[in-house]
Amino acid sequence: MAQALKSTSIYAPGSLLSITHLTVEEVSAILGATARIEQMPHSERAALLDGRKVALLFYESSTRTRTSFELAAKSLGATTTLVSDKSSSIEKGESLKDTGLTLRALGAECIVLRHLSSGAPFLLARETGLPVLNAGDGMHEHPSQALLDLRTMLTRLPGLDPATVHAKTLSGVTVVITGDILHSRVARSNAMLLPRLGARVLLCGPEPLLPEIARELGEGVEIERDFDRALQQAQVAMMLRIQRERLAGMELDLGEYIARYQLNAERLAASAPEALVMHPGPMIRGHEIAGEVADGPQSAIEDQVRHGLAVRSALLVRALNADGFKRVVA
Amino acid sequence: MAQALKSTSIYAPGSLLSITHLTVEEVSAILGATARIEQMPHSERAALLDGRKVALLFYESSTRTRTSFELAAKSLGATTTLVSDKSSSIEKGESLKDTGLTLRALGAECIVLRHLSSGAPFLLARETGLPVLNAGDGMHEHPSQALLDLRTMLTRLPGLDPATVHAKTLSGVTVVITGDILHSRVARSNAMLLPRLGARVLLCGPEPLLPEIARELGEGVEIERDFDRALQQAQVAMMLRIQRERLAGMELDLGEYIARYQLNAERLAASAPEALVMHPGPMIRGHEIAGEVADGPQSAIEDQVRHGLAVRSALLVRALNADGFKRVVA
Amino acid sequence: MAQALKSTSIYAPGSLLSITHLTVEEVSAILGATARIEQMPHSERAALLDGRKVALLFYESSTRTRTSFELAAKSLGATTTLVSDKSSSIEKGESLKDTGLTLRALGAECIVLRHLSSGAPFLLARETGLPVLNAGDGMHEHPSQALLDLRTMLTRLPGLDPATVHAKTLSGVTVVITGDILHSRVARSNAMLLPRLGARVLLCGPEPLLPEIARELGEGVEIERDFDRALQQAQVAMMLRIQRERLAGMELDLGEYIARYQLNAERLAASAPEALVMHPGPMIRGHEIAGEVADGPQSAIEDQVRHGLAVRSALLVRALNADGFKRVVA
Repeated sequence: MAQALKSTSIYAPGSLLSITHLTVEEVSAILGATARIEQMPHSERAALLDGRKVALLFYESSTRTRTSFELAAKSLGATTTLVSDKSSSIEKGESLKDTGLTLRALGAECIVLRHLSSGAPFLLARETGLPVLNAGDGMHEHPSQALLDLRTMLTRLPGLDPATVHAKTLSGVTVVITGDILHSRVARSNAMLLPRLGARVLLCGPEPLLPEIARELGEGVEIERDFDRALQQAQVAMMLRIQRERLAGMELDLGEYIARYQLNAERLAASAPEALVMHPGPMIRGHEIAGEVADGPQSAIEDQVRHGLAVRSALLVRALNADGFKRVVA
Repeated sequence: MAQALKSTSIYAPGSLLSITHLTVEEVSAILGATARIEQMPHSERAALLDGRKVALLFYESSTRTRTSFELAAKSLGATTTLVSDKSSSIEKGESLKDTGLTLRALGAECIVLRHLSSGAPFLLARETGLPVLNAGDGMHEHPSQALLDLRTMLTRLPGLDPATVHAKTLSGVTVVITGDILHSRVARSNAMLLPRLGARVLLCGPEPLLPEIARELGEGVEIERDFDRALQQAQVAMMLRIQRERLAGMELDLGEYIARYQLNAERLAASAPEALVMHPGPMIRGHEIAGEVADGPQSAIEDQVRHGLAVRSALLVRALNADGFKRVVA
Repeated sequence: MAQALKSTSIYAPGSLLSITHLTVEEVSAILGATARIEQMPHSERAALLDGRKVALLFYESSTRTRTSFELAAKSLGATTTLVSDKSSSIEKGESLKDTGLTLRALGAECIVLRHLSSGAPFLLARETGLPVLNAGDGMHEHPSQALLDLRTMLTRLPGLDPATVHAKTLSGVTVVITGDILHSRVARSNAMLLPRLGARVLLCGPEPLLPEIARELGEGVEIERDFDRALQQAQVAMMLRIQRERLAGMELDLGEYIARYQLNAERLAASAPEALVMHPGPMIRGHEIAGEVADGPQSAIEDQVRHGLAVRSALLVRALNADGFKRVVA
C-alpha cells in the first residue's frame, strides 16, 4: 500500500490510472459516491461540474466507454470535447504529450484517455499534471471497468451492499473469467481488484490465450483450463470477446473454441444455474456466448453498462471536484 | 389501416419506422405540432425535452439528416450523443441489437437510426422497446424526409395550409419524381405518402433505374418515361441524385442521361414554368439538375432543409414527450 | 485600405477571411474584446451568444483549431455542430456551396471553415451571406492564427499591452519564421499582419521550402537563409513543422535539415538566448525543434493555444453579436 501511495503521489489527485492505485477505502468511497449521485435529482447532479471542461481523448474506437464518460460528464453539467484519432493532429504525428498540453491550454481540467499503448495514461498524467482517467490502455488496464463490474456484482449477488466494500466483502465468491485473457485489460483490472475484496478469481482459456505466466498475477488468482469445472465453482461467469483473427494466428479453430469455451444454455444450466453472467462488450453472439444466455435471466450485461455510467459519474466528480466528492461519499 | 395499426403495436409509441405506419390524422397532427413548435420562443422550446437523452446512431454518412436531428434535439433541451461506424464498437462486429441495448442502458430514451440495411429500424425498435426514428434504412424508407417534403409542398403550393392535411389535400397535384428511383428511399417514402393525401405521383427515369415493377407501388403512382411529358403535368418536380458509378454498372452514359433527364433552365421554362423544384440532397449540380435551376425562384431546396429541422423537432417531441406532443398539436 | 474595404463589402460583417481584410484599428478592437471576454465571469460570458448556432465545417483534420473554436463557442453559450469530411455528404460529392446553404437552412448563423483549397472561405461567405471564419484554407491563410500569435507576442515581449495595437507597436521587433514557408498558411498570415504593426519578418529555410519569390510578400518581409544569422536578430523565433514526405519530394535529407535548421538548446543559447520561441503546432519534437526547447522557459507554445481560445471567442462574438462586440471592446 505504501508503495502504491508513493507511486501515485506524482499524479494529480483524482487521477485513476491503475486499479492498484486505489486503496480498498477509496474503492468504497467511490461506490458510496456513485450511489449518492445516482439518486440525485437532475438539477442537483448538473450542478456538480457546472461549467467544467472534460476532454475525451480516444486513440481507439469505443462505443460504451466513450459514450458513458461523455453522457456522465454532460449530466454533471460539464462541457465535453472529443478528440479522436480520426479527426485530429494525432494523425499528423503529434505526440501524446503535446496533445495533452494542448488540451490543457485549451482549458481541459480532466482528460479521459483511451490509448493503444500500455502506460500511456501515466505519461499523460505526468506531463500535464491534470487528473487523467484511464479508459483503457492497450492490453494493460481498464480500471473504471473493474469498478463497474464490482458494482454489478454487489448489486446482483445476494446479501451485498452496492455502496460500500471492505477486504472481505467478496469472501466466498468465485469469479470465472474466460476467453482471451492474454489480451484483455478487463481481465487484468478485475484480477487485480477482486481478490483484494476477498474474491477468488479463476482464469479460464486455452494456453495460447492464457499462458501459464498468468499465475503470477497474484494471490487469489488461479488458472482452471476446464471450462465446465471452472463454471461449477462460479458465482460469476465473466466472458470475454474472442476475435477470429487472433485464433487464426494461434492455429486455434473457432469451432473447437466454441465447443470448449462458449457459454451456452446447456452448459450454464448444467454447471452454473445460479451464476451471474457478465460480459464487458462488445460481444459476438454465437462465439464466446450464446444469444439466449446474453438475453437470459442470469445475464447482467446491460446492468454493467448502466453501472458504467454511474461509476464514471463518480470518477469525474472525484477528478474535478474534490470537495463535492467528499460531500457525496455516503 | 387496421393492418397498419396492428403491425405497429409492438413498437414503442412515438416510433416512426415507416411512413405507412402513420394515419392521415397522425400526419396532420405532426404537421400541426411542427407549426406550433416552430413559433415557440427559444426558452419554451428548450423546455419540451429538457434533460432527455437522444442517441444518434449512424451507420452511414449524413450531413443534413444527422445535423437536423441533432440540432432539433438540442434546441428542445435534450442531450445528444452521436455513435457512428467511424468511431465505435460497430466496427468490432457488435450487433445492432447489442449496440441498441447498450445505448438504452446508457440512458438513451430515443434512438435516431440510419442504417444500410432495409428493416434495421424495425429490429432496433423491437429489441430495445425504445421509440426509434428511422433516418433512412438502405433502399427502403426515409419517412421524416417524406414529411418534410410534404410540408414544403404545403408551404409553397398555392392555397394550402402547412399545419393540417386530409385525404384530399393534394387533389389535383402531380408530383414528378425523376432519377434513380430504384435505389431511392426518398422516392419510396414519398410514393407511399403523397397519394394518400390525394396527390398523383409520376415516376420518371430510364428502365435500369426505374424498373416496370415500380408500377406495383400502389394506387396513385404511375410511370412516365418521357421527362418532358412528365414535367408538363407537374406541380412539383422532385429530382434525385444520380451517381456516376451506378450508371456505369448499367451501361448508361452520363452525357445521355443528362440530355434526357437533367432539369435545366430551358426544359423547366418550356415544360413546367410554374412547378416547384425539389431535391432531397446531396445534389450534383450539372448532373441531375442545373445550378441555375437549383438556385432559381422555383427552387424549394433550402426550404426542404429548413422544414426538415422543424418536422424532426415535432417527431422528437412525439417520441419522447407524448403529453407535450398532444399539447402542441394545434 | 479603401481597396480592402471594397473587397470585403460583399461579405457579411464579422467574417474573417483574410488577415488583410482587417484594418489595424480592427485588429486592436479584436484584441481589446479578447481581453474583456477573458476576464468575464462564466455566466456573463455564456450570455454573449446564448442560443446562437455555430457550424464547424472541417474538410481537414484538426485538433487545436477545431477544439478551440468549439470550446470558445460553447463557453459563449452557443450551440455547435461539427460537420467533417469523415461523416458527411461531403464525401458524396456535394459542393461546398450546397453544404453551406444546407447549414444555413439548418439555422447556422456563422460557419467556421477549414478547407483544402485556397479561397474556399471566400466562396462560402459569398454564397451563404453568413459570417464565415477562415480556420485555414489550403496553403493560403490562417488569420485567427496570426491574431493569436500576435497576442502571444504582446503578452510575452516586454513593455507591450496585449489589449491594443497601432502601426508602430512592434517597431524594433524581428520575428524569424523558419521551416516549410512555401506550404505554410501560418507563415503567410503572420507575414501579412506583423509588418503592418511595425515588425520585421525574416523568413528562413532552404530554397525548396522558401523560394526566392517569397520576397514579394511585401514590405517588412525579408529572407535570411542562414538560420544562426537569422536567430541572432530575433526577438521571436517561430518554428514550422517539417514533414518528412515533403523533404523526400525535394531531395532534402532530414538529417541535413535538422543540422541546419533545428532549433535546439545549443543554438538557442548561442544565438538567441532571450528570444521567444513559438510554434503553431502540431510539432514534431526532434525534427524542427528539440524537446527541451519546446518545454523550456523561452517557449510560448502553450500560451499560443491558450490565446487561440481567447481570440477565437472574440472573433465569434464579432461574427454573431455586433452590438455585444462593440460593448466589450475596451
